[in-house]
Amino acid sequence: MYSLLDNYKDINHIKKMSFQEKIEMAKEIRKFLIEEVSKTGGHLASNLGVVELTMCLFDVFDFNKDKIVWDVGHQSYVHKILTGRKNKFNTLRQFGGMSGFPKSCESKYDFFQTGHSSTSISAALGIARARDIQNKKYDVVAVIGDGALTGGMALEALNDVGYRKTKLIIILNDNQMSIAKNVGGVSKYLNRLRLDPKYNKFKQDIENTIKKIPNIGNGMAKYLEKFKNGIKQMVVPGMFFEDMGLKYLGPIDGHNIKELTKVLNLSKKINGPVVIHVITKKGKGYEFAEKNPGKFHGIGPFNCSNGEIAVSSSETYSKAFGKEVVKLAEKDNRIVAITAAMRDGTGLKNFSDKFPDRFFDVGIAEQHAVTLCGGMAKEGLKPIFAVYSTFLQRAYDQLIHDICIQKLPVTFAVDRAGIVGADGETHQGIFDLSYLTQMPNMIVMCPKCTDEIACMLKFALKQNAPVAIRYPRGGDSVYLNPIKNLKLGKWEKLIGNGKIALIAEGKMLQHAILAREKLIDLGIDVIVINACFAKPIDKEMLEDLVKKNINIVTIEDNVIRGGMGSYILEYINTLDNKVKVLNLGYKGFVQHGKPDILYKLYGLDADGIKNSVLKICK
Amino acid sequence: MYSLLDNYKDINHIKKMSFQEKIEMAKEIRKFLIEEVSKTGGHLASNLGVVELTMCLFDVFDFNKDKIVWDVGHQSYVHKILTGRKNKFNTLRQFGGMSGFPKSCESKYDFFQTGHSSTSISAALGIARARDIQNKKYDVVAVIGDGALTGGMALEALNDVGYRKTKLIIILNDNQMSIAKNVGGVSKYLNRLRLDPKYNKFKQDIENTIKKIPNIGNGMAKYLEKFKNGIKQMVVPGMFFEDMGLKYLGPIDGHNIKELTKVLNLSKKINGPVVIHVITKKGKGYEFAEKNPGKFHGIGPFNCSNGEIAVSSSETYSKAFGKEVVKLAEKDNRIVAITAAMRDGTGLKNFSDKFPDRFFDVGIAEQHAVTLCGGMAKEGLKPIFAVYSTFLQRAYDQLIHDICIQKLPVTFAVDRAGIVGADGETHQGIFDLSYLTQMPNMIVMCPKCTDEIACMLKFALKQNAPVAIRYPRGGDSVYLNPIKNLKLGKWEKLIGNGKIALIAEGKMLQHAILAREKLIDLGIDVIVINACFAKPIDKEMLEDLVKKNINIVTIEDNVIRGGMGSYILEYINTLDNKVKVLNLGYKGFVQHGKPDILYKLYGLDADGIKNSVLKICK
Repeated sequence: MYSLLDNYKDINHIKKMSFQEKIEMAKEIRKFLIEEVSKTGGHLASNLGVVELTMCLFDVFDFNKDKIVWDVGHQSYVHKILTGRKNKFNTLRQFGGMSGFPKSCESKYDFFQTGHSSTSISAALGIARARDIQNKKYDVVAVIGDGALTGGMALEALNDVGYRKTKLIIILNDNQMSIAKNVGGVSKYLNRLRLDPKYNKFKQDIENTIKKIPNIGNGMAKYLEKFKNGIKQMVVPGMFFEDMGLKYLGPIDGHNIKELTKVLNLSKKINGPVVIHVITKKGKGYEFAEKNPGKFHGIGPFNCSNGEIAVSSSETYSKAFGKEVVKLAEKDNRIVAITAAMRDGTGLKNFSDKFPDRFFDVGIAEQHAVTLCGGMAKEGLKPIFAVYSTFLQRAYDQLIHDICIQKLPVTFAVDRAGIVGADGETHQGIFDLSYLTQMPNMIVMCPKCTDEIACMLKFALKQNAPVAIRYPRGGDSVYLNPIKNLKLGKWEKLIGNGKIALIAEGKMLQHAILAREKLIDLGIDVIVINACFAKPIDKEMLEDLVKKNINIVTIEDNVIRGGMGSYILEYINTLDNKVKVLNLGYKGFVQHGKPDILYKLYGLDADGIKNSVLKICK
Repeated sequence: MYSLLDNYKDINHIKKMSFQEKIEMAKEIRKFLIEEVSKTGGHLASNLGVVELTMCLFDVFDFNKDKIVWDVGHQSYVHKILTGRKNKFNTLRQFGGMSGFPKSCESKYDFFQTGHSSTSISAALGIARARDIQNKKYDVVAVIGDGALTGGMALEALNDVGYRKTKLIIILNDNQMSIAKNVGGVSKYLNRLRLDPKYNKFKQDIENTIKKIPNIGNGMAKYLEKFKNGIKQMVVPGMFFEDMGLKYLGPIDGHNIKELTKVLNLSKKINGPVVIHVITKKGKGYEFAEKNPGKFHGIGPFNCSNGEIAVSSSETYSKAFGKEVVKLAEKDNRIVAITAAMRDGTGLKNFSDKFPDRFFDVGIAEQHAVTLCGGMAKEGLKPIFAVYSTFLQRAYDQLIHDICIQKLPVTFAVDRAGIVGADGETHQGIFDLSYLTQMPNMIVMCPKCTDEIACMLKFALKQNAPVAIRYPRGGDSVYLNPIKNLKLGKWEKLIGNGKIALIAEGKMLQHAILAREKLIDLGIDVIVINACFAKPIDKEMLEDLVKKNINIVTIEDNVIRGGMGSYILEYINTLDNKVKVLNLGYKGFVQHGKPDILYKLYGLDADGIKNSVLKICK
């Protein structure tokens, strides 16, 4: 079926291919990627964009000694194909199957794991410095997108790279996109470079001319020197990088195998840090993805021949948030929405269309986003930062300093909280209940159903304090009536009787309700309580439970360590009388797989909760 | 005594002063600062550097409407003097007295609070955008040091500022220093700009010339256009900023009142973001500080007339760390040390002198530092990142992703853990036991005395996992014998008998020992246990305590929420039999003041612990 791909032997096989074979190989890889990802879902567009680049890297470098770090890592599918994992693509992102990100346990060629943006230069620099200190000889390559370059830590790393002159090859994979179109000054600057591919020829001409200018003494020479430097700046398009002490090569067409090979070979000879600016097209070679790279960024299974996706019409937490935020903003023009390059994923598309002047996409820059919100709140706006739980981790310090210490009324719409599924351990949002409840002044809410988003958002905007609303990926599995009246720190007793109370947050309530039904079948009733506030907790209700000697099972889509259950336990522990408390949640990192499989595995599905209750009954 | 300063009336007083009076005023402010800070201690050198700048800001702007954000904030003393707080300087950084950082509760002119580096542009941009959305008219100024500019979030903010063209004035206060000399590509670049103060004149000349070049059609015109832009790049020293979409003004002598006033006035007229590059001298006007700005950065009380500080010869945790790390590095050349602009504070000076090739100061860039260590560890080195607890908060996400998920053997020397004292709430290291114990695979250790640093460091370097060693500012108050043999997750029973066990981490052990002595006087003995591992906890010992029905008091220099005591409680709670557990620690942010005062206030001194035990006895 794939004449070249099926006969591909080892990581150095590309080196033996003719130019024509490489062209064919690229075609086969694209076909393979489209077919495989159409079945499993996954990150398609970014991988289609780096087919030639990855092949040329395997041609020019020898990854039995050389090392490569893929920033973010979801563009490493071609790398996975070329390192012997072609036959695992039918298990891509499935439970127990191949990860969608680099994983050292899968292959020694996934030398450093990634998942979040903007880390590759730091990691690669660390490897390169370790190489030098140990007098080893090999090349280290970091591949970073232009979107990831707007993340602060990438710039921290560039600052360090350029200073010490460590030999390191940075490939700037410039496709003008993060998930959506890129924003910001850096992107603007790259755009200028990108538009002028003739720079290099021109540069050569001018440099030859400069060489011919004789050196004249004193003042005139100084001026001339300045002139030379000026000319150099004019013709060196990567002045931004050169200013930082890196050699700049580019821009290069990232789909031109000959050009790529030439420049990669050149870069090996440069004794210091070098940036190769490679222009690629996200979705390259698949017309539907080329037209709509955002849609084909991370995608579920789709129809290969027409690019159609079975779009679910069912309500999700993100959609519910997106709708409500528009409604509220219509009535209150102090409401502004902020995203860090995740407009569509967080449900802010409509908001951005309706209120372009009150919508701010700051790039992949969560730290900046949080403090920006702090400034806005201080000057009277009502900022809402919609962000995935896992990405908000980047702004831990800013949350404490620029929000909580000053008790600024910023609303955090913490999407993808709890298990997210196929993206796996780097993307599960299983720490936020721990880190957010640690922060003095922070209020933390958890809607038990999509309908509850609306009243929580309204409530949050009325507080004179920071509020985080954390909710999961996807939608509801059980219908529950949304709470009517929210009162700060007051929980909702949903249903049930008996000597055991299930206190659950967010969607875990739905699992708790199902668990109760199973327990009823066994003749055991339990009370189900909606911990709509993970902070402050409902002390009065807890005291009441203790008074009645009702034991407690806490259920959260979060690690147990320091989470909501731990918070409840800390409080129960301060009371004179005690009851049994059982904390359900995760004990470590959670791998990739369908949420239902994972909930079952960790005992957080209805059966698991039921079994835990039965144990406590004994 | 201060003829001008004593008669200074309100924030707009500077506007009424003559040039000569301003010169005098600057002298008086310097004299005042030196005298006051010599008595209380505080940040001197950076404040001496911004005397004229601050005065000129108050001259040109009206802070009854205009807003200013001081990055980091420890250089806001002159601002405090000019906003009516001169008479509070005798309470500077004392418990209940004036903070060393901007504080909204002290003055409405401290509009946005700061403490950590690199936040000012984000906050100021937030304010400016809120201003525009609400159609208000005023100026927003951010003052940021060149050191802070290497922090990633400042660059994230610049990326955003330049893109949207929001009117905002950024003052780059370039003193070539963070606390110590600056490092990195950005610093190198600024240095180039700084060395050429004639740029501006030259720029004007050339721009005039360019204007005279006629426009010729077609290809030639294109080349000419490129030539013009090239010339512009040559003569616009701030191309880095202009590339990002900001107008650059400078470099300006930051001690020249006339020049500063002119440029600040000019900046008000620019309708978009502008960077004013101001060159200042850290420590300006006080010869001892000019010579040694690092020493006079943050300083204790000193002798005004000779600049001498009563240097304490007593051992500190930082010194003990510094000594041991050199010893170990002599025997093992895989050991490297990393700092984020805190070489001296963390005790790494000797290391950097002895092993310059194995020492890495990455600038104010904790995120990059952590991931860099990850890369180094992956390639076989034994990296030690020495960092203050409060600053490590910046790298929360990197710790999880680039260290813990991959279980990389990096050692974190977490200095200034717990209460640090005078720097106050932004600098207390009271969250690390919560956030570090949350992270799967992370080992957390706490030396109970300075002598214990050595064996912990040795132990850490032998682990095939990340290890954080957290220790406080200063040294010991009670002598304790260091532990001889460390075993992973095994605590040390120090002394005592009875039905109550004090389980304390780190220096809190010393308080616990003193508390026990007070209890003995009252006829009560208690067991004192060294929780040398905050993670993993000693389950065996805990089970043994429970079996013997011994109640537990946990003591930690950290917030209670999610901390070590909470971790112990979580475990006790999983056992069939229970004992009473009392968690001592903080319940929220901790203000500035001497540690002893604060420990007493929060019940963590010997008396407080004693009283808690007495309560549990009842």
